[in-house]
Amino acid sequence: MKSAEYKRLLPEIAYDCILRNTMAQVAYQEIIEEIYAELKSVENPGKVATYIPELGNVSPDKFGVYLRTVAGETFHYGDSHELFSIQSIAKVLLLALAYKTIGIKLWERVGVEPSGNPFNSLVQLEYDSGIPRNPLINAGALVVCDVLMSEFSDAPAELLTFIREITGNEKIDFNARIANSEKENGYRNVALSNFLKSFGNIHHDCEEVLDFYFKLCSIKMSCKDLADTFMFLANNGRSPDRKRNILTPSEAKRLNAIMMTCGFYDEAGDFSYRVGLPGKSGVGGGIVAVYPNNYSIGVWSPKLNEKGNSYLGIEFLERFTSETGLSIF
Amino acid sequence: MKSAEYKRLLPEIAYDCILRNTMAQVAYQEIIEEIYAELKSVENPGKVATYIPELGNVSPDKFGVYLRTVAGETFHYGDSHELFSIQSIAKVLLLALAYKTIGIKLWERVGVEPSGNPFNSLVQLEYDSGIPRNPLINAGALVVCDVLMSEFSDAPAELLTFIREITGNEKIDFNARIANSEKENGYRNVALSNFLKSFGNIHHDCEEVLDFYFKLCSIKMSCKDLADTFMFLANNGRSPDRKRNILTPSEAKRLNAIMMTCGFYDEAGDFSYRVGLPGKSGVGGGIVAVYPNNYSIGVWSPKLNEKGNSYLGIEFLERFTSETGLSIF
Amino acid sequence: MKSAEYKRLLPEIAYDCILRNTMAQVAYQEIIEEIYAELKSVENPGKVATYIPELGNVSPDKFGVYLRTVAGETFHYGDSHELFSIQSIAKVLLLALAYKTIGIKLWERVGVEPSGNPFNSLVQLEYDSGIPRNPLINAGALVVCDVLMSEFSDAPAELLTFIREITGNEKIDFNARIANSEKENGYRNVALSNFLKSFGNIHHDCEEVLDFYFKLCSIKMSCKDLADTFMFLANNGRSPDRKRNILTPSEAKRLNAIMMTCGFYDEAGDFSYRVGLPGKSGVGGGIVAVYPNNYSIGVWSPKLNEKGNSYLGIEFLERFTSETGLSIF
Amino acid sequence: MKSAEYKRLLPEIAYDCILRNTMAQVAYQEIIEEIYAELKSVENPGKVATYIPELGNVSPDKFGVYLRTVAGETFHYGDSHELFSIQSIAKVLLLALAYKTIGIKLWERVGVEPSGNPFNSLVQLEYDSGIPRNPLINAGALVVCDVLMSEFSDAPAELLTFIREITGNEKIDFNARIANSEKENGYRNVALSNFLKSFGNIHHDCEEVLDFYFKLCSIKMSCKDLADTFMFLANNGRSPDRKRNILTPSEAKRLNAIMMTCGFYDEAGDFSYRVGLPGKSGVGGGIVAVYPNNYSIGVWSPKLNEKGNSYLGIEFLERFTSETGLSIF
Repeated sequence: MKSAEYKRLLPEIAYDCILRNTMAQVAYQEIIEEIYAELKSVENPGKVATYIPELGNVSPDKFGVYLRTVAGETFHYGDSHELFSIQSIAKVLLLALAYKTIGIKLWERVGVEPSGNPFNSLVQLEYDSGIPRNPLINAGALVVCDVLMSEFSDAPAELLTFIREITGNEKIDFNARIANSEKENGYRNVALSNFLKSFGNIHHDCEEVLDFYFKLCSIKMSCKDLADTFMFLANNGRSPDRKRNILTPSEAKRLNAIMMTCGFYDEAGDFSYRVGLPGKSGVGGGIVAVYPNNYSIGVWSPKLNEKGNSYLGIEFLERFTSETGLSIF
Repeated sequence: MKSAEYKRLLPEIAYDCILRNTMAQVAYQEIIEEIYAELKSVENPGKVATYIPELGNVSPDKFGVYLRTVAGETFHYGDSHELFSIQSIAKVLLLALAYKTIGIKLWERVGVEPSGNPFNSLVQLEYDSGIPRNPLINAGALVVCDVLMSEFSDAPAELLTFIREITGNEKIDFNARIANSEKENGYRNVALSNFLKSFGNIHHDCEEVLDFYFKLCSIKMSCKDLADTFMFLANNGRSPDRKRNILTPSEAKRLNAIMMTCGFYDEAGDFSYRVGLPGKSGVGGGIVAVYPNNYSIGVWSPKLNEKGNSYLGIEFLERFTSETGLSIF
Repeated sequence: MKSAEYKRLLPEIAYDCILRNTMAQVAYQEIIEEIYAELKSVENPGKVATYIPELGNVSPDKFGVYLRTVAGETFHYGDSHELFSIQSIAKVLLLALAYKTIGIKLWERVGVEPSGNPFNSLVQLEYDSGIPRNPLINAGALVVCDVLMSEFSDAPAELLTFIREITGNEKIDFNARIANSEKENGYRNVALSNFLKSFGNIHHDCEEVLDFYFKLCSIKMSCKDLADTFMFLANNGRSPDRKRNILTPSEAKRLNAIMMTCGFYDEAGDFSYRVGLPGKSGVGGGIVAVYPNNYSIGVWSPKLNEKGNSYLGIEFLERFTSETGLSIF
Repeated sequence: MKSAEYKRLLPEIAYDCILRNTMAQVAYQEIIEEIYAELKSVENPGKVATYIPELGNVSPDKFGVYLRTVAGETFHYGDSHELFSIQSIAKVLLLALAYKTIGIKLWERVGVEPSGNPFNSLVQLEYDSGIPRNPLINAGALVVCDVLMSEFSDAPAELLTFIREITGNEKIDFNARIANSEKENGYRNVALSNFLKSFGNIHHDCEEVLDFYFKLCSIKMSCKDLADTFMFLANNGRSPDRKRNILTPSEAKRLNAIMMTCGFYDEAGDFSYRVGLPGKSGVGGGIVAVYPNNYSIGVWSPKLNEKGNSYLGIEFLERFTSETGLSIF
């Protein structure tokens, strides 16, 4: 297409849009620091998760932000380079690998509907005869673990390789201490896996599936790592350096869609309403969100609201998308 | 901002994005006709809603599409100018008027979470003590009707004025015959309104609230009307002619977010996954969807899937966003 | 059978049983007064129902007991002759008339299982597709009202005649003021009836069914009236004077069985465990219980526990069956 | 009390009652054989449980009855002396030992309400925050196992001693093969125990609790054994020879009350309505029922109705209490 034709077609509105995007981008650093400052003085009613010592011992005042644009520009502030337990955020990476590997056959064993219930609920699962509502609740992730174990002889190692490849960071690893702590307190996940198995939706030994699952939840990353790792979802499936395809554009879009409706347990609607970006949270206080074709962003603040999502993390992202005037909507 | 600076900042990716948008746009008509042709030969297992004669008597083979870009270009095919009962789609317009009128106080009486349950379920409502999960399920719309009745002496008339103003079409009106049919078969809605009143979340007489509600559901539009009417949600709240603000940009974004997570009852996740646009369906077989900053689209095919959404309508939109490679994700 | 044979067969145990029954009976008056005295000094955490003025205005300290044996002996104490609103207790009489009239066909429209949920819950009803779990919850009684309306041209009058015949008390009547108050506050019952109608399990106009239902709930009786009226269920279906059959012995047994498992909403198991007699409670603070082949008993104390049953009434009956050592178990 | 006084007090009704009891008793054998013959020709739509081979391999046509009166008379027919897996029936014996041992403190950890849901449902458990509705559903029995493990160093051995003492039959034992089969297929029970532990309502290691539970379910008895073993509940807590107290009369009554409302999962109301006796069923096709102060009865027929209770067993008992005209109601 020639430039002249391009200009003729490009509507005024698109110029507007680009302009807003561009202007916002110039101001990203400023906006981040401004909100960061505001929130430092906001009273935070949240509570740090304490069910395992590795979460309970984290300083509740940690607060970091890291944004990376698809063009490679980066903006960050606060504890943005400190490692923390990303917990359930890793479920998206697990899902990405499974979806890439077996495609739509995955949906025979797990749904794509928001759960509309607390994240560890068994009620919905029984109602739906052992088909978890979506792959981002615990039950769904257990099934996805089981799926990958049928595909790979060493599924945990395969996942680790996949994550390291995406992000180019060879240091990302499972954390044995966290995995063990999870295991020692994971009665509800043991219950879930056996319940799923009673419906025939777990094919391997429950203990092995749980081992994989607890490893999955034990990964530590920084806000920077999160932004780097999830860049492929902002980037139509391409790697951060735009040289390789992690997923096809269509696959990446669909994962974003699932994050949008299912990424925040029974607060998914609220996150969509307030922030307007696909994202995923973890009980370690991390949140990752992506603005397709624009940026990925990692936020971390350990104190959780009563729905189990980072109180300050959501506050930050709401103000950030409001200030920049940019969201997928 | 000067042009030079603009060009420096505008990343390669944004060019990509615009390019794709532009190219797709050129091809819109062709893509629409192609998919339309494909789907005409697809076996449609859906069933026309028959609970009122005005729906049951519609020819099941009707099929229309109308797309309007923010720049004002239009593309259409099939029965795109024929009027049909838009039913629940009108709930978005009701919500827009209420949100515009009383703002965030609205969320004291209705939530923004996906229901995760069939659209007329009372279960969730009891669990949530009379606060409907969101304004797009029946219970939520009844509460929003009640809210507007406290704000306006003649809320139905006010709503009609609002809709006519948005769309510039003075012919849009309530349909008395449909409203009466709804009333005669609306036992479940009578149940809902009285149930809500028992929780104190309906302030007016149930019968009056129901009258308003049944009027709301009786509006008839064509695919063209739908695309015109919902253009403001694709357009940051501005009217189709871009001269007036129907809503602020932030308000428009938030309504889109609610459509995204709540617009398709317990198929919201699936629509998000397959189509990737905010939208709303009605049992008349209509669907409206918006691609913010790009287009609004109305689709109509009366046969519904088992979740109560237009079978062919969703099929069309899935193929359309796949073919164009464009969605909010 | 000759007396000699009779004695040979009558086991030692039956003598024991009769002896205990007889001895207890001698002591009934004494035991009643003793427990009454004890309970007068017990702190009562219950709360009087206030949703209609006719209940809210009753003195919370009222406390009456009336026991009538199948042989016609009577024992009573306290406010045993004062009229109060028997409310849901009347559902048993409604059920008796319906069961007598159409027999087991009744079970096509209502079940006989305990609800396991608060008495006005819609959840179970939806789960069970419009078939109420049992005839003693509100939904079930509404269906039974509807059933009787198909059998009689003036079902409320027929019910009144039936009750007066059972008890020989022509003064028993509906109370228009209570019925009206119920109606004015009965949103949840309006909801229930319309919900049932949406499933096709109400055949008449909802308003007429509700009129009958609210009349049913408006009956006033004293503890004496309750004991007299329910004597037929202690008496194998025979009238108190043992001259007429109200129900067959088998029908009477089955009504007792239903009271046993369903008479106290989601406290049925607890009442069975603590008291060990079939019975039924009302939000007016009344309880009636029957010990088949032995006695019927009416108790009244207006303050209700958190499950909606008379706090002191249950306390009294638990102590009474414990002191006498007699229950159906 | 002198004989004269006794006669004066003994009401005509009691004579009636004794007479009916006595006459029925004379006819027990005849009635049993008559019903047995009738049912042999009835089409049985039930299905044998097959989830473990020890159940699936049983001949579906087995059918036995054994009745024992409190006076020690016995009546039996068919396969009344053949051993079968009593499964959940043993939960009543477990409960008896726990109630006898720690008394009402037991109710801090398990309720006495009917579940109103399929027997292995996790839904109710979550709703009730880990307190099982009653001790006769799987979740409840798991908690009772755990309770006994805190009281005795070898709880399974203690239970066996208790059962052997009640019944005087030293041969009653756990069946290792059944216990192992249960274990290999017991995913849902593993789920339940871990779910309970996540709420803090299991204090021991889940695996040990499950071992005890699976042993409990593995006991084999004949109809005769059942009638002998459960005689104490018909007998005010006294042993079959009436020489020792297994439970106090009050404790025995309360266990019967619990069987009445909770003994047949979500068919408890139906069993109460049709049979009118406290009882307990097992998936092996056995049912035990007691008529306090009169008799205990064991019935066995392996084919189960869709609620998981013996189809022919319930049919038999309904006809038996109808024919004899005797039930607790």
